Amino acid sequence: MSLRHESGIDLAALELDAVLIAGVENVRYLSGFTGSNGMLLLRREGNPIFFTDPRYTIQAAQEVLPRTRVIPRGALITGVASEIKRSRARRIGFEKSHISFDLYGQLKQLLDTRCELTPLPDLVARQRMIKDERELAAIRESVLINSQAFERGLKKIRPGISESELAGEIEYQMRRLGAEKPAFETIVACGARTALPHARPTRQKLTANQLILIDMGTFRDGYASDMTRTLHLGAPPAKIRRMYQAVLESQLAGIDAVRPGVTAGKVDRVVRGVLKKHGLDRYFMHSTGHGLGLEIHESPRLGKGDRTVLEAGMAVTIEPGVYIEGAGGIRIEDTVVVTQSGCEVLTPTTKELIAI
Amino acid sequence: MSLRHESGIDLAALELDAVLIAGVENVRYLSGFTGSNGMLLLRREGNPIFFTDPRYTIQAAQEVLPRTRVIPRGALITGVASEIKRSRARRIGFEKSHISFDLYGQLKQLLDTRCELTPLPDLVARQRMIKDERELAAIRESVLINSQAFERGLKKIRPGISESELAGEIEYQMRRLGAEKPAFETIVACGARTALPHARPTRQKLTANQLILIDMGTFRDGYASDMTRTLHLGAPPAKIRRMYQAVLESQLAGIDAVRPGVTAGKVDRVVRGVLKKHGLDRYFMHSTGHGLGLEIHESPRLGKGDRTVLEAGMAVTIEPGVYIEGAGGIRIEDTVVVTQSGCEVLTPTTKELIAI
Repeated sequence: MSLRHESGIDLAALELDAVLIAGVENVRYLSGFTGSNGMLLLRREGNPIFFTDPRYTIQAAQEVLPRTRVIPRGALITGVASEIKRSRARRIGFEKSHISFDLYGQLKQLLDTRCELTPLPDLVARQRMIKDERELAAIRESVLINSQAFERGLKKIRPGISESELAGEIEYQMRRLGAEKPAFETIVACGARTALPHARPTRQKLTANQLILIDMGTFRDGYASDMTRTLHLGAPPAKIRRMYQAVLESQLAGIDAVRPGVTAGKVDRVVRGVLKKHGLDRYFMHSTGHGLGLEIHESPRLGKGDRTVLEAGMAVTIEPGVYIEGAGGIRIEDTVVVTQSGCEVLTPTTKELIAI
Repeated sequence: MSLRHESGIDLAALELDAVLIAGVENVRYLSGFTGSNGMLLLRREGNPIFFTDPRYTIQAAQEVLPRTRVIPRGALITGVASEIKRSRARRIGFEKSHISFDLYGQLKQLLDTRCELTPLPDLVARQRMIKDERELAAIRESVLINSQAFERGLKKIRPGISESELAGEIEYQMRRLGAEKPAFETIVACGARTALPHARPTRQKLTANQLILIDMGTFRDGYASDMTRTLHLGAPPAKIRRMYQAVLESQLAGIDAVRPGVTAGKVDRVVRGVLKKHGLDRYFMHSTGHGLGLEIHESPRLGKGDRTVLEAGMAVTIEPGVYIEGAGGIRIEDTVVVTQSGCEVLTPTTKELIAI
């Protein structure tokens, strides 16, 4: 089989005979397999070998380019060990963040004692940071569906609907618009609960004169989108409007800072700087954003001191927020793509403070 | 803090000073924390210590019983290492299947060289197999919501609706009925696609005279349900009816075999035996069922040769299936609870072959 994407792993340079890919999204990226249980053995000599379990026999035949597909009878790792032996590979690399201590131990025990297992960082994740045209098209589509679902969800907002019902309406609309599924549990939080950055929707009902925070994303053709908007039920008081403007100013400054050659940490610093000017930086306790693609959170992370240098083709979120316990929270988030000269904001949804 | 449930770990017997719990559902089971990033350090002397990141500061205060909550500034594992040092713990156990090789390496490096790290099997998962009354009530509620959502979904079935739209309708109804979210990506497969045990819904439209397989589950108060039904659009031909009856017979025999003292492997053998009698066993390529609770798939597994002895309070699925490439597949699945004398089928939905 030939791979769908380059792995970004130079086996010769690493002096490895084979590398085991175990991260499920890495397997999907390289092989095209969309199931939940698969592994891939890249070999210095010979084709890559794909492994899955018998539930996926037919699906693997449809999705994975032919040549070398192995469906072991027992555990996948047993099949992997057999193929390593058969290939006479001695120096085997593995993804240290995608293999549990347990699985590592099993593999070590199954292999010849002369085999050497070398832990590797997540090299495929690095490769995945730069999206190709097909991937960007999927993300673009995902972002548009997400914003359309938001528009439809807006129409359902009224005092009396619960956070959970509203989240359900939004996810239903995503699906109707052609998304595979929500990219994460849709966040709908109202009133003081907006101060919880990762609030789960509850049966609490929306009431007049309160903040509503909606953080939502979809998967389309396997690729994620992510957006947050904060609204106000009723005319927002001056204090809320001021907080909102400060967050918006910092978000726009962040977007302005995104360009090739800039570090992820620099973008975070710019965002935090604006909030500091407004005396709000201590209420912003998460990072400025994250890469997204086959996963909703992937490299790079845009946080304090992150040294990854932004490059054209990276898709990231910019999402500053301010959370004041008891009072409430405001977050504004877009999905953007780094271009040759700056970035393109994919999210078309207005960032004016929406009052309903 | 005192724990919500017993951990099932006897630190004294294991000669350990502390055990690090890293499995997210294990952390939830023991601490009550429902966020996505948390760890728990059980100590032989002193209270357990709970760790999360700053996004969850407020949520942790609401969910986790007080006394010892730590929100490290950097990575969780750094905070964990500091507390291990402060506790002067030397012999530390960890869940080998829930810690990546990478995280293990980080922890080892952060700790004093005199510290000894001991890999442990998933002892909390063993404890979690037996559900208490409160957990069983949540599963019961989850199963009822799931079956009600199925009934509502049935009304939407007609030629022309796509697999994906139908899955969306079903998930929407789950949410409206009070579920937090689907327990997994709802499977709706029609025609030949029913032969894929783990089919993802596509934009393919339902047409007359074909099989439809629906596999669905919800989470309610954190607990899962799971059900599969296979229907026929139009009057089913005799061949389909015969296959359906064979699967139903094997499913009922499986349910009949569930009782305390019997091994999980025995139940699987009974189910396979009935299919063999009908010459269909070679088309059944997955296991008979699985435990469910805070996870949709948890211990015990009901597969070939599984030696776990069933006990009262276990919640498991019984789900034989027959999948013939090109022709189609039939699966019937209920959620059952092991009782003192046998088992109780929680799923109320009819198992007659539904023709629509």
